[in-house]
Amino acid sequence: ARDIRLAVVAGDGIGTEVVEQGLLALDTALHGGAVTVSTTDFDLGARRWHATGETLTDTDLEAIRAHDAILLGAIGDPSVPSGVLERGLLLKLRFALDHYVNLRPSRLYPGVASPLGNPGEIDFVVVREGTEGPYVGNGGAIRVGTPHEVANEVSVNTAFGVERVVRDAFARAAARPRKKLTLVHKHNVLVHAGHLWRRTVEAVNAEFPDVTVDYLHVDAATIFLVTNPARFDVIVTDNLFGDILTDLAAAITGGIGLAASANINPDRTAPSMFEPVHGSAPDIAGQGKADPTATVLSVALLLEHLGLPEAAARVEKAVADDIVERGQVERVRSTAEVGKDLAARIAG
Amino acid sequence: ARDIRLAVVAGDGIGTEVVEQGLLALDTALHGGAVTVSTTDFDLGARRWHATGETLTDTDLEAIRAHDAILLGAIGDPSVPSGVLERGLLLKLRFALDHYVNLRPSRLYPGVASPLGNPGEIDFVVVREGTEGPYVGNGGAIRVGTPHEVANEVSVNTAFGVERVVRDAFARAAARPRKKLTLVHKHNVLVHAGHLWRRTVEAVNAEFPDVTVDYLHVDAATIFLVTNPARFDVIVTDNLFGDILTDLAAAITGGIGLAASANINPDRTAPSMFEPVHGSAPDIAGQGKADPTATVLSVALLLEHLGLPEAAARVEKAVADDIVERGQVERVRSTAEVGKDLAARIAG
Ligand SMILES: CC(C)[C@H](C(=O)O)[C@@H](O)C(=O)O
Ligand SMILES: CC(C)[C@H](C(=O)O)[C@@H](O)C(=O)O
Repeated sequence: ARDIRLAVVAGDGIGTEVVEQGLLALDTALHGGAVTVSTTDFDLGARRWHATGETLTDTDLEAIRAHDAILLGAIGDPSVPSGVLERGLLLKLRFALDHYVNLRPSRLYPGVASPLGNPGEIDFVVVREGTEGPYVGNGGAIRVGTPHEVANEVSVNTAFGVERVVRDAFARAAARPRKKLTLVHKHNVLVHAGHLWRRTVEAVNAEFPDVTVDYLHVDAATIFLVTNPARFDVIVTDNLFGDILTDLAAAITGGIGLAASANINPDRTAPSMFEPVHGSAPDIAGQGKADPTATVLSVALLLEHLGLPEAAARVEKAVADDIVERGQVERVRSTAEVGKDLAARIAG
Repeated sequence: ARDIRLAVVAGDGIGTEVVEQGLLALDTALHGGAVTVSTTDFDLGARRWHATGETLTDTDLEAIRAHDAILLGAIGDPSVPSGVLERGLLLKLRFALDHYVNLRPSRLYPGVASPLGNPGEIDFVVVREGTEGPYVGNGGAIRVGTPHEVANEVSVNTAFGVERVVRDAFARAAARPRKKLTLVHKHNVLVHAGHLWRRTVEAVNAEFPDVTVDYLHVDAATIFLVTNPARFDVIVTDNLFGDILTDLAAAITGGIGLAASANINPDRTAPSMFEPVHGSAPDIAGQGKADPTATVLSVALLLEHLGLPEAAARVEKAVADDIVERGQVERVRSTAEVGKDLAARIAG
């Protein structure tokens, strides 16, 4: 019998509510099989910061490292200065655990309303780099608060960092029917970083001759995401462009309430982390209004990553089936009700 | 009698074709009035670069400076390495002539098809900073082409630069019926630059107490652009975020074929530049297929900037009326035909 040690970071706002349903889905998917789950709760986020001033201590980090995976709800609260929890906790986890593949699938499930009039078939995945770019925290400011303030932000890109995520994206593209990879950057302006990305994609393409490659500037990519999203299969892009594109991708496929993500360390030198794309949504927190679907879909990505593809498929199918019914029934369900309905479908 | 000295940079690809119609619209709008236009053509772009290796010489720049305004078609060609013309010509003009307000209005004209199923009323303007941010060209790379390459891009933001564009955006918001300004940034990650922008917006708000201010992270802004674009009135944002948001804004309002822009030096220490948002579109160049409407709308912005609001209004109305008919008549018109039809409407 195999036991999965799962670190649970419910976090802030609706995080707790959606994680509860994610765990229910996980338990249900594994029920009666040879694999069990033991969870450890980590008290991280706004409450902890207010109480202790801590975001993520070395002790927390080492404890988390001893797990096989992390399920994260949401981080962030208006009562905490902007950047403190994002940089000190969420991004610190992604960086410290070397989550260099930030995987965000976008699929328009049958029955889901898209804001696009004629969305077509949307089924692509964004491979967002997770440990470099403008997210490195390599900025600074002088003369802050004076008329002479200068605030810089540095985007750092390395051959090492770009190559490993590009290779991962090629492998994913090669495993999909359409075998198509689109690099998104802005190499006509960000010439140094952009040309590194471009050269790397060209070089790694030699290892994956079956994969067709094209390129879009990030501005043009946003146009195609609303005029012809069906053109996309796998997108590989930098940390910031990936952040922007995946929110837009979520919007055209029915909203961030459905968008799952995985922060993957493909070398498995540290646990990967699974989290919905949405934030802590303090405006609806504690009211049982949050849609746990994105978290449940993130659990499917977790199962997949842990080598349990059948369980993952059951979770995904439960969501797809539930979504078809949502389009037909006019009933507002609470977070717990959606979780219960999904669990019932997973149980089969 | 007043004579407007107009520098014309037709540029590459469809640039020549659309600029010809832009000039026809301009001449027609001023015909019979007290204001005349004298144009100087500047041979800049891919052809010149191939012939001489030059992008924009000091002599070109000084000659352009002696004009009241610039009309630009499009810059860029696949035969020129990426970045050469963008950085060496287009961005050099924006930076050298201190075009710190890159103004991009987004309006869904009645009769225009939007990719959004239920677009609502779209009528906002993006004030994109034009002389700072990641566009400053302040990056570099070491060990290029080796496994140890590091490529950095630096976003530079100054109190001076942010304050002047924020003040301009507030003034524009104050002059509009809804008086609403949305700052778009990513201050939870780009904390130094983001907090400078945020503090500046808060400070300048005191001078414009009638203007309501809100804030969106750039990723969330892309969501609202497709789910509720009517929420936007004036957006103020940095150079790169503005680049991305305005292409998306163009897409939801019928495409870059209709999107106008103005690179404004509000202090009038150098000529402002008016250009369609679209590029040189080499795939359709020379075929009379390009839609000159974005250039004609850019001419309206030019007239407005030169203190000729009635002529500007005539041009805008001609476009609006023409667009209504487009929705009704199933006829593909050439670039020149659209230009002629617009001119006929401007003539009245
Ligand atoms: C909360 C924020 C730091 C984060 C990001 O920018 O990566 C979020 O937007 C996301 O996409 O996961
Ligand atoms: C061509 C390119 C340098 C330019 C930009 O990024 O500003 C274009 O995309 C634009 O929006 O005018």
